[in-house]
Amino acid sequence: DHFIICGYGRMGSRICEELTISHAQFVVVEADPRAATIARSKGYRIIEGDASADQTLVEAGIERACSVICALTSDADNLFIVLSARNLNPNIRTITRASSEEAAVKLRRGGADEVVSPYTAGARRMAAIALRPGVVDFIETAFSGTGGGSLIVEEVKLDERSCPFVGMSLQQINLRNRSGGLVVAIRRADGTLVGSPTGETTLAQGDVLFCLGTDAQLRTLSEALLPVKTG
Amino acid sequence: DHFIICGYGRMGSRICEELTISHAQFVVVEADPRAATIARSKGYRIIEGDASADQTLVEAGIERACSVICALTSDADNLFIVLSARNLNPNIRTITRASSEEAAVKLRRGGADEVVSPYTAGARRMAAIALRPGVVDFIETAFSGTGGGSLIVEEVKLDERSCPFVGMSLQQINLRNRSGGLVVAIRRADGTLVGSPTGETTLAQGDVLFCLGTDAQLRTLSEALLPVKTG
Ligand SMILES: [Ca+2]
Ligand SMILES: [Ca+2]
Repeated sequence: DHFIICGYGRMGSRICEELTISHAQFVVVEADPRAATIARSKGYRIIEGDASADQTLVEAGIERACSVICALTSDADNLFIVLSARNLNPNIRTITRASSEEAAVKLRRGGADEVVSPYTAGARRMAAIALRPGVVDFIETAFSGTGGGSLIVEEVKLDERSCPFVGMSLQQINLRNRSGGLVVAIRRADGTLVGSPTGETTLAQGDVLFCLGTDAQLRTLSEALLPVKTG
Repeated sequence: DHFIICGYGRMGSRICEELTISHAQFVVVEADPRAATIARSKGYRIIEGDASADQTLVEAGIERACSVICALTSDADNLFIVLSARNLNPNIRTITRASSEEAAVKLRRGGADEVVSPYTAGARRMAAIALRPGVVDFIETAFSGTGGGSLIVEEVKLDERSCPFVGMSLQQINLRNRSGGLVVAIRRADGTLVGSPTGETTLAQGDVLFCLGTDAQLRTLSEALLPVKTG
C-alpha cells in the first residue's frame, strides 16, 4: 500500500518532498546512479534500475503498491510504465506527467488514471492566484498535510446591535485578509441560503455565516464580526 | 482594474483561457507577430510589442491594471517586467513564472508578489492527486469559476432510527465517492466539535455533520445519510 515514484528528476524530487511531508510510504525508481545517490542521501528507499523493465517494478513492490507516479521527462517512457504497471497490478492507480496536451490525450488513451502537465498546472496556478488570491492560500493551508490546523466550519450569527458590518459587503469588511477564514455560505433570516457569496454580497441583520477555516482563523474571524461579545 | 498577461506562449495561452472562463478583463502583450495573431483570433485584446518597454506596458493600461502576469520563458525578462510594472504602478500585484527554485528566489527579491514554477506546480499537483484524490476533485469543482455550482455548507443531523451508518467510520460509508460532498466537521451530541474528520472518524447518534459541496452533491450526500426521511 505504498507509492512508487518513477524518475527522481526536477519533478520527481519535489513529489518525494510532498509525500514525505504527508508521511506517505514510497519507493523511488531511478536509473541514473548520480540521481539515485542524491535520493538515497535524503533517506528515501531507492530501487536503482530502469522503470520500463518489469523486474524493476516488481522489486519496487508494484503488486502491493496503491499508486505509481510516472515523473520521467519522456512521454513514451511514462506511457510504457503506465502499461507495465497496469499489467502487473490491475488495481493500481497510475498518475503520469505529460509534456503537452497532445501527449496527455495519448497517455489517457493508454490507460493513465491521472495526467498532469507542468505547464498546464503552472498556468492554472498562476490564474488562480491572480483571480482568487485568498482562496488559493486558504485551500493550501486548510487541505495540506502541513497546514498545522485542521479545518472546521463554524456558524456565526450576526446581531445588528453588536455587529458593525450589517449593510456592508464582504469585500468592504475584508474578512479573508483579516482572518484567513472563508465565508462559504450565508443563511438569511428568512431561511434563504446564499452559497459561495462573492465580494459584493452584503450582510444583513439576522444572517448566519458559515465560516470555514482553522480554529485560529475562525476565532479571529468571529472576533472581527462580533466585537462586543466574542465567541 | 484589468489583468495584463505578458507572453502568449504555452503558459500564457492557458492563463488566458482560465481568465476567460472566469469572465475576467485582460490584455495580452506579445512581441511575436505569429503568436499575437493566434491570440487575436481568439478574440483577446492584444498589444503587439515588447513587454520590457515601458511604452508597451503603458499602452496595456498598466497604470489602472490590478495585476500583471509575467509568463515569458526567460526569468530575466520576467524580472525586468516585474520591476517596470512596479515602477509604473506601485499598487499593482505582480505574478511571475520562474524556471527554477533558484530563479524564484531572485524574482521574489526583485519584488514579485507571487512566483510560480511550472515544475513545482506540476509536482505539487501530482502529489496532491496521489495523496488526496477526492479532495483535489472537490476543490476544483467547488472553487473554480467553472464548477457550475456554487459551494454551500449544509448541516445534516444523524438520527439512529433512520441512519444506518451510526457506528461506522467515514471510510466505510464512503460519502466522498458516493456524493462528491465533503464532511468538514462533526458536532457531537455533547457539543464537542471534530474538525477535519478522517476516514477513521466514526459516526455517533446525534452527530451533526457539516457538509461542504455543491447543491447537487449535498443533496446526494444527505439522501445517502438519511435514507428514510430525506431533506
Ligand atoms: Ca522527474
Ligand atoms: Ca508563455
